[in-house]
Amino acid sequence: MPPFIDRNRVEYAQTDMAGIVHFSEFFKYMECAEHALFRSIGLSVVQEDGDRKLSWPRVSCGFDFREPLRFEDEFEIRMSVEKIGTRSVTFRAEVHHGDRIMATGHSTSVCCELQPGGGLQPVPVPDFIREKLQVYA
Amino acid sequence: MPPFIDRNRVEYAQTDMAGIVHFSEFFKYMECAEHALFRSIGLSVVQEDGDRKLSWPRVSCGFDFREPLRFEDEFEIRMSVEKIGTRSVTFRAEVHHGDRIMATGHSTSVCCELQPGGGLQPVPVPDFIREKLQVYA
Amino acid sequence: MPPFIDRNRVEYAQTDMAGIVHFSEFFKYMECAEHALFRSIGLSVVQEDGDRKLSWPRVSCGFDFREPLRFEDEFEIRMSVEKIGTRSVTFRAEVHHGDRIMATGHSTSVCCELQPGGGLQPVPVPDFIREKLQVYA
Amino acid sequence: MPPFIDRNRVEYAQTDMAGIVHFSEFFKYMECAEHALFRSIGLSVVQEDGDRKLSWPRVSCGFDFREPLRFEDEFEIRMSVEKIGTRSVTFRAEVHHGDRIMATGHSTSVCCELQPGGGLQPVPVPDFIREKLQVYA
Repeated sequence: MPPFIDRNRVEYAQTDMAGIVHFSEFFKYMECAEHALFRSIGLSVVQEDGDRKLSWPRVSCGFDFREPLRFEDEFEIRMSVEKIGTRSVTFRAEVHHGDRIMATGHSTSVCCELQPGGGLQPVPVPDFIREKLQVYA
Repeated sequence: MPPFIDRNRVEYAQTDMAGIVHFSEFFKYMECAEHALFRSIGLSVVQEDGDRKLSWPRVSCGFDFREPLRFEDEFEIRMSVEKIGTRSVTFRAEVHHGDRIMATGHSTSVCCELQPGGGLQPVPVPDFIREKLQVYA
Repeated sequence: MPPFIDRNRVEYAQTDMAGIVHFSEFFKYMECAEHALFRSIGLSVVQEDGDRKLSWPRVSCGFDFREPLRFEDEFEIRMSVEKIGTRSVTFRAEVHHGDRIMATGHSTSVCCELQPGGGLQPVPVPDFIREKLQVYA
Repeated sequence: MPPFIDRNRVEYAQTDMAGIVHFSEFFKYMECAEHALFRSIGLSVVQEDGDRKLSWPRVSCGFDFREPLRFEDEFEIRMSVEKIGTRSVTFRAEVHHGDRIMATGHSTSVCCELQPGGGLQPVPVPDFIREKLQVYA
């Protein structure tokens, strides 16, 4: 299946004194793309499911950087679902600028039910979410 | 009264492609100093007061910039309480680097009681907070 | 003249523990809108002008907040040019969500020529920039 | 050898609507600790070496998250040098809060010489830097 594509542009505040995008911003780009992917299939990362509220705390993520992005660069983040486990989902991100891949990232989140009082209880990924995420698997 | 002094150092991620601290970071510096001021008098900006919980949403703030800060610069934020109104407090911040004033800021927050469900109801500044803030007035 | 309109959406990382957009993010929203305004008239805030390079360090800015923005809210920033001085430009920003104004901001930048070695020398706003900015005055 | 310890405190702007520190902030915490480690051995990440200027672009980094940090939590980042290669250095970070490990991270940077015009040329890690970094290996 083709990946989900999120188009974005580098903003000034995302650059650092080396004249390039600060590495921590790539994690925000990946998160924005992940949330846009959820929206594209009618979901939200803060999801009501009947009486309960689901959330997706991140347990692991990383990035490999090949080339830097610069101010006003337009780029694409191509997001695919690498794995849907019993209680977790792993995304893979490719940051494209023109015909070059600038960076690749990955991120794993666990499906959790918000508890009264603010705690988070891991739960199986509901079937309706699992089926929708398959679109990008 | 002497102001409250918060000492800080410029981190790499706070710089931008002009090689200086991005202007939006000064607002975070001022907020950090404000919260440190609260802690210095035994308070927190997220404050229990008997059965109720108080919070301080910001209604107005601004900065005038004279000179830039750069990576690893050590600086001071001198915070004073400019005005304590019935329901609000206004702070004034001076950002000092060596013997120079780099920027001056101001910020006004309203004392609010957190409502069940998440709303915010403006309330008079409690006397015990008012008295403690006078230290920096 | 109608203002320049920049459409945007609240990202997760821009929220804080109060469940609303952190106030410092409004300054980044305003900056993004300002840079989009420059692009809309064929300019950039990092502008070549013949042999020299122009930049626009900010000397003053502020925001008044009326109502909070929340995760995934879609909003507009309406930017207008409030004043074009000899060497400076002042923008005014209105943040709209649905039919409500959530916040209003202002920002003044000085036109500067980048010096060899990294300094900034204030210079008169070039006529070709002045004329283009008039579109939103 | 014992690791380098950087002490820090969670600031309000680093929290998100889940009431915890946003995951992207851990990468900034790790970077701050890395730069503090450099300072502790008399170095800087932006280092003069005779006529040349050295910089350390990041090529890979990641984090595993176990438990969340919250507003005003005081924590330690314990940094150790996992590997010093010919041209690169890999750091390992443990984020401690009280007696618990909240998260572990890693980051690899390549030693580069700044070229006239802004490019970056990978170079061997100079001996005087290699020897100093051994302190935390």
